[in-house]
Amino acid sequence: MKLGQVTIKDIARELNVSTSTVSRALKDYPGISDDTKKKVKDLAEKLNYRPNAVALSLRKSKSFTIGVIIPEVVHFFFSTVISGIEEVAYANGYNVILCQTNEKLQRELSSIETMLDNQIDGLLVSFSKETENFDHFTRLMNQNFPIVFFDRVPDIENTVNVTVNDFNGAYEATKHLVDQGYKKIIHLAGPKTLTISKKRIDGYKAALQDHHLKQKPDWIIPCPIGTQQESYEITKSIFKNNKELPDGIFASNDIAAAGAMMAVKELGLKVPEDVGIVGFSNWQFSSMIDPPLSSVAQPGFEMGEKATEILLEIIEKKKEANWEPKTIVLETELLVRKSSKK
Amino acid sequence: MKLGQVTIKDIARELNVSTSTVSRALKDYPGISDDTKKKVKDLAEKLNYRPNAVALSLRKSKSFTIGVIIPEVVHFFFSTVISGIEEVAYANGYNVILCQTNEKLQRELSSIETMLDNQIDGLLVSFSKETENFDHFTRLMNQNFPIVFFDRVPDIENTVNVTVNDFNGAYEATKHLVDQGYKKIIHLAGPKTLTISKKRIDGYKAALQDHHLKQKPDWIIPCPIGTQQESYEITKSIFKNNKELPDGIFASNDIAAAGAMMAVKELGLKVPEDVGIVGFSNWQFSSMIDPPLSSVAQPGFEMGEKATEILLEIIEKKKEANWEPKTIVLETELLVRKSSKK
Repeated sequence: MKLGQVTIKDIARELNVSTSTVSRALKDYPGISDDTKKKVKDLAEKLNYRPNAVALSLRKSKSFTIGVIIPEVVHFFFSTVISGIEEVAYANGYNVILCQTNEKLQRELSSIETMLDNQIDGLLVSFSKETENFDHFTRLMNQNFPIVFFDRVPDIENTVNVTVNDFNGAYEATKHLVDQGYKKIIHLAGPKTLTISKKRIDGYKAALQDHHLKQKPDWIIPCPIGTQQESYEITKSIFKNNKELPDGIFASNDIAAAGAMMAVKELGLKVPEDVGIVGFSNWQFSSMIDPPLSSVAQPGFEMGEKATEILLEIIEKKKEANWEPKTIVLETELLVRKSSKK
Repeated sequence: MKLGQVTIKDIARELNVSTSTVSRALKDYPGISDDTKKKVKDLAEKLNYRPNAVALSLRKSKSFTIGVIIPEVVHFFFSTVISGIEEVAYANGYNVILCQTNEKLQRELSSIETMLDNQIDGLLVSFSKETENFDHFTRLMNQNFPIVFFDRVPDIENTVNVTVNDFNGAYEATKHLVDQGYKKIIHLAGPKTLTISKKRIDGYKAALQDHHLKQKPDWIIPCPIGTQQESYEITKSIFKNNKELPDGIFASNDIAAAGAMMAVKELGLKVPEDVGIVGFSNWQFSSMIDPPLSSVAQPGFEMGEKATEILLEIIEKKKEANWEPKTIVLETELLVRKSSKK
């Protein structure tokens, strides 16, 4: 064994079963007999098998397929990234297969395994909100398997990333609210586990600080689920339980902003007269709601294109330099609509 | 050869190259030398190779992966179908890989090939708007490869389908406009190639006929692209070039309805006072636009669940009966919002 590690294939060969049977037996999936499960597990233990130690470097031929791991296809931003990925992939003769994790770590793990079984040549990854440990990626990278992370960048070394300038985007959005005369600006924040959430919080705080506006810790409110209903309820309770009413809302995404707008309107307040609102990501619907929502547009298509270009360069080893760790940061653009124009 | 047909594998073995090299050489993809391309093509001709004659039945083990071919992941309806598919698939220990065709036949063909290379156990398909010939599916079905079609049902025999009652949905939407007092109702129709478009047109016509309302051939306007911009422009030109102004619009999807609404408002007409509008598919944004859009909700999640249940039954041959051709029709629900309430 090249890597000194036992793989699923070794176990499968030894027991004369398929690799997927081994993989599934180890994970206690249904459809495998208890007898087989026991045999597989016993041998795995005896051989000191470690999951994911797929001997990737033993593969002979390319599949001309790249895998994409995304949290949610319904997310407008991700769907534009996918379009960018496909443009570059198809133009270069590669096919694209997608797996959606639904923000679940377990699905992320099994999706990666499925894709590796399927002999993809490389991976484009935006990991799930649940992912806090990145060993499953590190293991692959240690075996020189090409991975490029997009949008959500892991807090580990030696990765290749394409992301957007979330700090600047949040700074510009908050500064715009300040410029329009809003003074008590709250932030509906994203999940704590994501670096992009932290950067948007930092941008929000920096803009308030630079303009000498009041900051309160309880004005940064996490919306971990990210649904419209969640931010609707959170916003209602903030406005009901605060003596000092906020007059500005910067939300970490448009869905949260739309929920907040609904709550504000229901409380009899006017947007933008009483409360100014800015979202993030510029969803398809944002220009159509009432009033049209200001939002920070991310270059999703460009991000998909760039990430795929780099991945294909790594795969085809056209430029060895591209295998070097690096992070490409794309700029955002603030789209001012009626929801934040006093 | 079991099926009496030469496969890519035979050519690959003979020339001592990989199957993907053969596949790509036959398609004139980049990255393959002209010399190799010539060798492959010559041998393919000599052996009378026919594309897609993959000897599927020769496969030994299951991959516990199902493939899903969808036109567009950004389409809200399809994203809810995907969620339904994943619920059932994961609960049964199957993984799901997606390929997006972007409504292009060429991508549909290459996606299917990629998925078959990847040893999927079965396919869930909603084909592209460009697909008018279904030979690539028929060939697979003739080899007993499990396929279930959802939403878009092909006009060929012996298929297993899960669809919604588009006729009834369109009938109810049109009848609702009639009930509200609208009399000159136009229909923004979907692409002609799709059966669902035809059924929605039929439902619209039947409702007008049953209520003795005027019908004009040029009141059924095709919107083949399906973007908001397209229906915006079409609606503007209808209202500008018609002496007899329409007072109702039934659109075959919410994006088209939203574009029409924008055009109507820009012309100084009021929704719903002057023009009533109803869409189809109940996109996420529909309740948030101004005024909130009435729409025909399709049971996307349920459709995904049902299609996957049937596919897994076929794959696991639990019920041989399920391999029999059949079409399951799910009912729609009209959601009445402000855009159509006089």
